[in-house]
Amino acid sequence: MSLLESLQWRYATKRMTGERLPQEKVDIVLEAARLAPTSSGIQPFAILQITDRQLLDKIRPIAFNQPQITEASHLLVFAAWSDVTAAHIDAVYDRIALERNLPEGAQSAYVDNLKKRFDQMPAEKRAAFAANQSYIALGVAITAAASEKIDATPMEGFQNAALDELLGLKEKGLRSVTLLALGYRDTTNDRLVHLKKVRRPKEELIIEI
Amino acid sequence: MSLLESLQWRYATKRMTGERLPQEKVDIVLEAARLAPTSSGIQPFAILQITDRQLLDKIRPIAFNQPQITEASHLLVFAAWSDVTAAHIDAVYDRIALERNLPEGAQSAYVDNLKKRFDQMPAEKRAAFAANQSYIALGVAITAAASEKIDATPMEGFQNAALDELLGLKEKGLRSVTLLALGYRDTTNDRLVHLKKVRRPKEELIIEI
Repeated sequence: MSLLESLQWRYATKRMTGERLPQEKVDIVLEAARLAPTSSGIQPFAILQITDRQLLDKIRPIAFNQPQITEASHLLVFAAWSDVTAAHIDAVYDRIALERNLPEGAQSAYVDNLKKRFDQMPAEKRAAFAANQSYIALGVAITAAASEKIDATPMEGFQNAALDELLGLKEKGLRSVTLLALGYRDTTNDRLVHLKKVRRPKEELIIEI
Repeated sequence: MSLLESLQWRYATKRMTGERLPQEKVDIVLEAARLAPTSSGIQPFAILQITDRQLLDKIRPIAFNQPQITEASHLLVFAAWSDVTAAHIDAVYDRIALERNLPEGAQSAYVDNLKKRFDQMPAEKRAAFAANQSYIALGVAITAAASEKIDATPMEGFQNAALDELLGLKEKGLRSVTLLALGYRDTTNDRLVHLKKVRRPKEELIIEI
């Protein structure tokens, strides 16, 4: 199946069977998200993988009681850094220097400039930057799931503050942005499964210049 | 090549050869972006496809003179709606009703609620919502490009207001969010091509609960 056929196959699954996905399949989705590009390579987010059924039971009411939360095999929480600090940037570029075996100071000018740019940004812009990058990884993860024939439901409809509180994200310097429920579609009970996929037509979405 | 191998193969190409990609390959990337899921199916963005060399020459200084702008085959501009209005939402759900042959009023309660939610949001939150969705499509497009062995460079480093002005985006109700340069890597002149890909390790990025 081509990638476009996989993207046609996928849909926002509202009912899942509760069956467990093999962890090695989920790991492909997670690895794809890890490989997603981000601005300046900062990767300013974490992905929480939740399989604990009792915890999922607690999350469901926070997500407006959507059944796929508890019927999923795995729930991924894409959580952005609350802030992007000089220490964060140093950690990223120290790792790059180490893994690429760069001479001392090879990246100093670039890194100093990057730190200055973030330092001059209003705090809410830094937080938005971090959330934006997590959406790129979400898009990559959704595509990887489709190509692995894993049903995946991206969700913004949940109470972010309540989820952050439940998962202790604030203490981790994170805030929840999106959810991705992974599992198997329940073809008997999901009325969406047979509906035609509707998208804005190419002539409207794509502007050629 | 598996999807993970394709994601390993890709990198943020800084030098391209200027060679033209077959349009049918670019169309696969655009179609993948069109199929990307968005919150409530709204797809609040457009994608501008630019191949005009004179226009690319004008964009390059706006993007801090990065060479891939003019060495790319195609430059895609992901541009989010400046606002999400009741008229936008009606257009989306009128199309869904038509294509799914739904009875009159079948979606009314859902659509009314959706309009109310957007109406109650501050304007900058609506704009952020639109930009966020365009990042999902960007992630899907990047993955599709990798799987088609198209080099693709996502970029946030450009002067948004200047690009909006040059492309007349404001008049179209759009604002530029990201660029994606598509083309062929110049393996002779791109010093990044031989560098190791560095990402935060799985143990740090993924939190298992």
